[in-house]
Amino acid sequence: MGVPQYKEVRRAYGFDEVSIAPGQVTVNPDQVNIEFSIDSIMFSAPILASAMDAVVSPGFAIEMDKQGGLAVMNLEGVQVKYDDPDEVLAQIVEAPPEEVTALFQRVYAAPVREDLIGARIEEITSNGARCAVSITPANTKRLAPVAVEAGADIVVVQATVTTARHISKSPRGLIFSELLGMIDVPVLVGNCVAFDVALELMETGICGVLVGVGPGATCTTREVTGVGVPQVTATMDCAAAREEYYRRTGRYVPIITDGGIRTGGDLCKAFACGADAVMIGTPLAQSEEAPGKGFNWGMASPHPALPRGTRVEVGVKGSLRQILYGPSSKYDGTQNLLGALEVCMGMVGASDIRDMHEKAEIVLAPSIKTEGKHYQLGLA
Amino acid sequence: MGVPQYKEVRRAYGFDEVSIAPGQVTVNPDQVNIEFSIDSIMFSAPILASAMDAVVSPGFAIEMDKQGGLAVMNLEGVQVKYDDPDEVLAQIVEAPPEEVTALFQRVYAAPVREDLIGARIEEITSNGARCAVSITPANTKRLAPVAVEAGADIVVVQATVTTARHISKSPRGLIFSELLGMIDVPVLVGNCVAFDVALELMETGICGVLVGVGPGATCTTREVTGVGVPQVTATMDCAAAREEYYRRTGRYVPIITDGGIRTGGDLCKAFACGADAVMIGTPLAQSEEAPGKGFNWGMASPHPALPRGTRVEVGVKGSLRQILYGPSSKYDGTQNLLGALEVCMGMVGASDIRDMHEKAEIVLAPSIKTEGKHYQLGLA
Amino acid sequence: MGVPQYKEVRRAYGFDEVSIAPGQVTVNPDQVNIEFSIDSIMFSAPILASAMDAVVSPGFAIEMDKQGGLAVMNLEGVQVKYDDPDEVLAQIVEAPPEEVTALFQRVYAAPVREDLIGARIEEITSNGARCAVSITPANTKRLAPVAVEAGADIVVVQATVTTARHISKSPRGLIFSELLGMIDVPVLVGNCVAFDVALELMETGICGVLVGVGPGATCTTREVTGVGVPQVTATMDCAAAREEYYRRTGRYVPIITDGGIRTGGDLCKAFACGADAVMIGTPLAQSEEAPGKGFNWGMASPHPALPRGTRVEVGVKGSLRQILYGPSSKYDGTQNLLGALEVCMGMVGASDIRDMHEKAEIVLAPSIKTEGKHYQLGLA
Amino acid sequence: MGVPQYKEVRRAYGFDEVSIAPGQVTVNPDQVNIEFSIDSIMFSAPILASAMDAVVSPGFAIEMDKQGGLAVMNLEGVQVKYDDPDEVLAQIVEAPPEEVTALFQRVYAAPVREDLIGARIEEITSNGARCAVSITPANTKRLAPVAVEAGADIVVVQATVTTARHISKSPRGLIFSELLGMIDVPVLVGNCVAFDVALELMETGICGVLVGVGPGATCTTREVTGVGVPQVTATMDCAAAREEYYRRTGRYVPIITDGGIRTGGDLCKAFACGADAVMIGTPLAQSEEAPGKGFNWGMASPHPALPRGTRVEVGVKGSLRQILYGPSSKYDGTQNLLGALEVCMGMVGASDIRDMHEKAEIVLAPSIKTEGKHYQLGLA
Repeated sequence: MGVPQYKEVRRAYGFDEVSIAPGQVTVNPDQVNIEFSIDSIMFSAPILASAMDAVVSPGFAIEMDKQGGLAVMNLEGVQVKYDDPDEVLAQIVEAPPEEVTALFQRVYAAPVREDLIGARIEEITSNGARCAVSITPANTKRLAPVAVEAGADIVVVQATVTTARHISKSPRGLIFSELLGMIDVPVLVGNCVAFDVALELMETGICGVLVGVGPGATCTTREVTGVGVPQVTATMDCAAAREEYYRRTGRYVPIITDGGIRTGGDLCKAFACGADAVMIGTPLAQSEEAPGKGFNWGMASPHPALPRGTRVEVGVKGSLRQILYGPSSKYDGTQNLLGALEVCMGMVGASDIRDMHEKAEIVLAPSIKTEGKHYQLGLA
Repeated sequence: MGVPQYKEVRRAYGFDEVSIAPGQVTVNPDQVNIEFSIDSIMFSAPILASAMDAVVSPGFAIEMDKQGGLAVMNLEGVQVKYDDPDEVLAQIVEAPPEEVTALFQRVYAAPVREDLIGARIEEITSNGARCAVSITPANTKRLAPVAVEAGADIVVVQATVTTARHISKSPRGLIFSELLGMIDVPVLVGNCVAFDVALELMETGICGVLVGVGPGATCTTREVTGVGVPQVTATMDCAAAREEYYRRTGRYVPIITDGGIRTGGDLCKAFACGADAVMIGTPLAQSEEAPGKGFNWGMASPHPALPRGTRVEVGVKGSLRQILYGPSSKYDGTQNLLGALEVCMGMVGASDIRDMHEKAEIVLAPSIKTEGKHYQLGLA
Repeated sequence: MGVPQYKEVRRAYGFDEVSIAPGQVTVNPDQVNIEFSIDSIMFSAPILASAMDAVVSPGFAIEMDKQGGLAVMNLEGVQVKYDDPDEVLAQIVEAPPEEVTALFQRVYAAPVREDLIGARIEEITSNGARCAVSITPANTKRLAPVAVEAGADIVVVQATVTTARHISKSPRGLIFSELLGMIDVPVLVGNCVAFDVALELMETGICGVLVGVGPGATCTTREVTGVGVPQVTATMDCAAAREEYYRRTGRYVPIITDGGIRTGGDLCKAFACGADAVMIGTPLAQSEEAPGKGFNWGMASPHPALPRGTRVEVGVKGSLRQILYGPSSKYDGTQNLLGALEVCMGMVGASDIRDMHEKAEIVLAPSIKTEGKHYQLGLA
Repeated sequence: MGVPQYKEVRRAYGFDEVSIAPGQVTVNPDQVNIEFSIDSIMFSAPILASAMDAVVSPGFAIEMDKQGGLAVMNLEGVQVKYDDPDEVLAQIVEAPPEEVTALFQRVYAAPVREDLIGARIEEITSNGARCAVSITPANTKRLAPVAVEAGADIVVVQATVTTARHISKSPRGLIFSELLGMIDVPVLVGNCVAFDVALELMETGICGVLVGVGPGATCTTREVTGVGVPQVTATMDCAAAREEYYRRTGRYVPIITDGGIRTGGDLCKAFACGADAVMIGTPLAQSEEAPGKGFNWGMASPHPALPRGTRVEVGVKGSLRQILYGPSSKYDGTQNLLGALEVCMGMVGASDIRDMHEKAEIVLAPSIKTEGKHYQLGLA
């Protein structure tokens, strides 16, 4: 048919549509290395805790550091708006469902207090833990220096969508190369999903890219605005940018898949698709140590005019250690996430994460939907 | 296998299968322009209210005009068949479900009264609002002059499927070029879904094309007759016709996606696929100002021999202003539809709707079905 | 990846995955001609009633003839095994669900009585109605001459899968060219789904091919044996065989899509895919005139060792006339099937069924699954 | 769009997405031969019972041999860990759901007793039945000689994923060519899903390959680790390896599809995709003879740190004979599995399993999901 094509429609894939094919050689899981680094900072576990108020408190950040990963504290949330954040968190958790959105809009209208930024960061670092903080682009020039001054080891600049170039009325917006001149700690930036945007961000000199728009459990960005790219394709495209940038410059900028990871299977797929690390929210909100007490909500949920997501009851499933390293008493993939990664890498035959990038084959296998009935038998 | 191909099967896409990829540059939502025009008539909001009796009454049309959009009044419905349409609407709303179809068939059998056409149009225009009316092709030659005489600003000729050429027993059917000679207001025509039909309609001189066959919430045309084309493909094909016609003639004929839009996400996708405006029914039937009082039904629902659709309870979700501009207390995409469009255009990096057409990338991302489980968490 | 391809996997389509695109010209439904013929026997409606005991009794066959279609009587069912079939039918209808399969296996073990064949056929023809009968290949040589002798106008040789060549222990099986020499009425054969099989069957001289393996509502052949081809592809492939055979010989052998048609939409799609007529069971079992009294079951349901399907409660929805021609008080596509066909042909711009074959465009539009939620709103 | 492709995504298919097209010639089911052999050991039925504790006890193995198939006993399960396995099985069956995983972890922590291996094997062989046992790679060098000494006819080396090469800390792991020098019975190895791995395994001299990673009813490997390949693709790829190896060497190494087969339809599809035999668990756990008494669980369910699957209630559906050979009183494909295979081969026109490999055409027909609604009618 002679219909001119108005616009190309490119196929994109999500975690539930793919699986990982086993490799030609297998490796014993105890021979597998899962280390990860941001700039020169090493982590024994390639896992970041999302900058959500229900996930990361100073206490949680200290525990996450002990377990080898990195918690990112939200620098525009209740921890830096209230003297007693626990009281505010309790209000949110206890509010009747129909009042939650209005309560969010009220609670988050309070201003950020710079004195509290210092206090929270010090609480983390004085316990010997590494400290990362998350700031939105609009507030970065003001708050990032405060956080670094207070001892933050890593700054994450994060919004639903972030690009290297932004058009606004403000005379001078955030320019990443300028920011990097102002502060002397590694900067991670997100979120992005595209090859060219990831490449352009890397060219500014930042030290890591967060990947993912739309897929998180507490976020309805795709429902509300139509915008979103499934994580398998987003991760692969940004991994292609990392390889291209590395080829050109010799500098390796890790990419961190953020959003949509609920099980060990999802986590393993992110690495198989090229992630160097993952950022997760809901699975960690389910830990005993999380401040959300069995609830979670997204950073866009309190938006005053266009809320995207609400409070979600996620339950408490075990200690943080158990969720990350097992032993597991669940068979549904929500515990021993890193043990699952090591078993997966063993089946793929990968000795470390770079080897996983190279060896893991991805198959498009949407039949999980129907074969899922079998699994559900097992989950009943 | 040597099986000769009997017929090509072309893949078509619907809203739920696609999403919009963010752009390479972002724009602040307050920098975005969403104006729309039909011929020389300007609207500050690119949104038309469907010509459904449960959506548009004279009172609703006045309110819609205040909000910057355009309501289309059904010129073959209860407003122009009954002295007291509110009484008839109340009967429909209160009828037991099993009696609704028969009641529709009885209520809509009444004739159109030309005196009421004048009265309803005057009620709208005397309040300073723009007035658009919808007529089926068979009645257009008789009713369109009456409506224009009474002050209608725009005439919409609309049936389930409309083409520039129609074969019937009547000695002389509707010919659009002749109609345009009879009346001196802009004419919109629909519905169509195909490149060639849209092009042929534009060549008659009409000022806009309504796009969509089969996808609406109150319509079962596809179930009953097998006919229908999903809106992403229908919109793209008609947008291709608009571009081709503009390239040939320099005249820009807007296309208006009509049907299947329930959320801000759907609405944003329509623009990303090439729509200049959208026509929506159900989301507006959910406003406090709608005459349906929380119910809606389609124009083909009362068909005497082949009804397609019935009365649907849609609920009342807020004021018209809130549904269009927020602020929203819902996080599911049913409020602040135009705020969502501005946020979306900002993430795409589009400064106006033509820029949105050019910059928005569409990805085929059916994983929404499974990732939707996540969203549902948030919606529980 | 260098994996040699073991076997090609060809994509096949079912009714629910496709829809019909409207045409470039529209035709008034009252201008549309839906006649159909088998050899020189004309029918005003292109519709056959399935050879199921719950659908076709002599009384039903007479009524079907009055409505312009053709009922096919099962010549191995209760009508020709029992003096009082109504009593046996009542037993089946009233049996508790857990006893139905065993009852089927017992009831259908009774032998066919040749005297009853004559009686039933005469009951139909003496009322002036055309009479068609269905026989399985194994019994055709014995029963077909009896039926023709008794006055049958058309013989249908039908099994789950029928080919022109069959390998068995019996010294001489059924050979269609020999059968055609024995009886002088048109023979229809089925079921088949493939281009080459349909072509080979046409070459034997038979007068029509029934298309469909696996899709029917009362059949679980695909679940039990893995065998089945969705109807859109099966119909298109057999239509390609009809065109090829017609091109070679000038003889036009109609194809009849049998199975999987529940709504007017499905029926319209069958014609759009190349069917000359359709054979339907469940929609007719829902008529007041059907002997199943609101139940239906398939011809393979009583298989003694490998039953495929069981008794299904389908309900009684209206008179046969209403189901075929309306007027409809339902909006879900189960009534006024032929009115729906005429409306569909009008939207496609087809003046008769051959024109429908030529003009109807098929789009692959699986989004019905999600858009179906909208319909369900309307069906609540 | 100029996005470099980071990684290829290959489409893989599962049973529910495909169906088998009937052939050009049909064969009477009583003319069909379904024999199968491993090395020189012949079986009248091409069916193996999974090495699951809920499926295979010595008593079940004897009955399975009588029916012409082969049961594989788990040589690391309760039969060889406990003097009275029935008592332990009863504990598992009776445990409350929330205690099952912990009970598994405790019960399976007990060591394998070599004396019990001899006793159980002798119980089987002294009844004249063929005996096969399953061992994981880590224990094969120790336990395989014990089992062969005790009279095992076939040794199966089986883990979630097995390759010809494995990297571990142990100075000398399992090398198949060495194992084959130690024992003089046929060795089967699994599981694998890939062309190259299957080929490499065949080159070691083993006598059969088990195919399948992730699809079983009692296993959540894909959920937990992301690893899995749907069975249609896995079977075809390993069948391609068998053909390639046969072409090169003249030795025919059968492949056995293991996992994901619930119905006769699934079983028939496995053969159509190239399987020489199938290994099934759940359908046999549903037999009266199975030790699981209506329950089933997988071999990875008791994993101490990363359990994959749990106890599933599967019900008791009939005798083993009835499940394999009918007659069936069920119409859902769970009984008379081998009768279904013969009927299927008849419709395909295949006289034996090699002929089935050659003649069966596979179509991708995911519409089963919607057409499934019809079946469900029949299953209500």
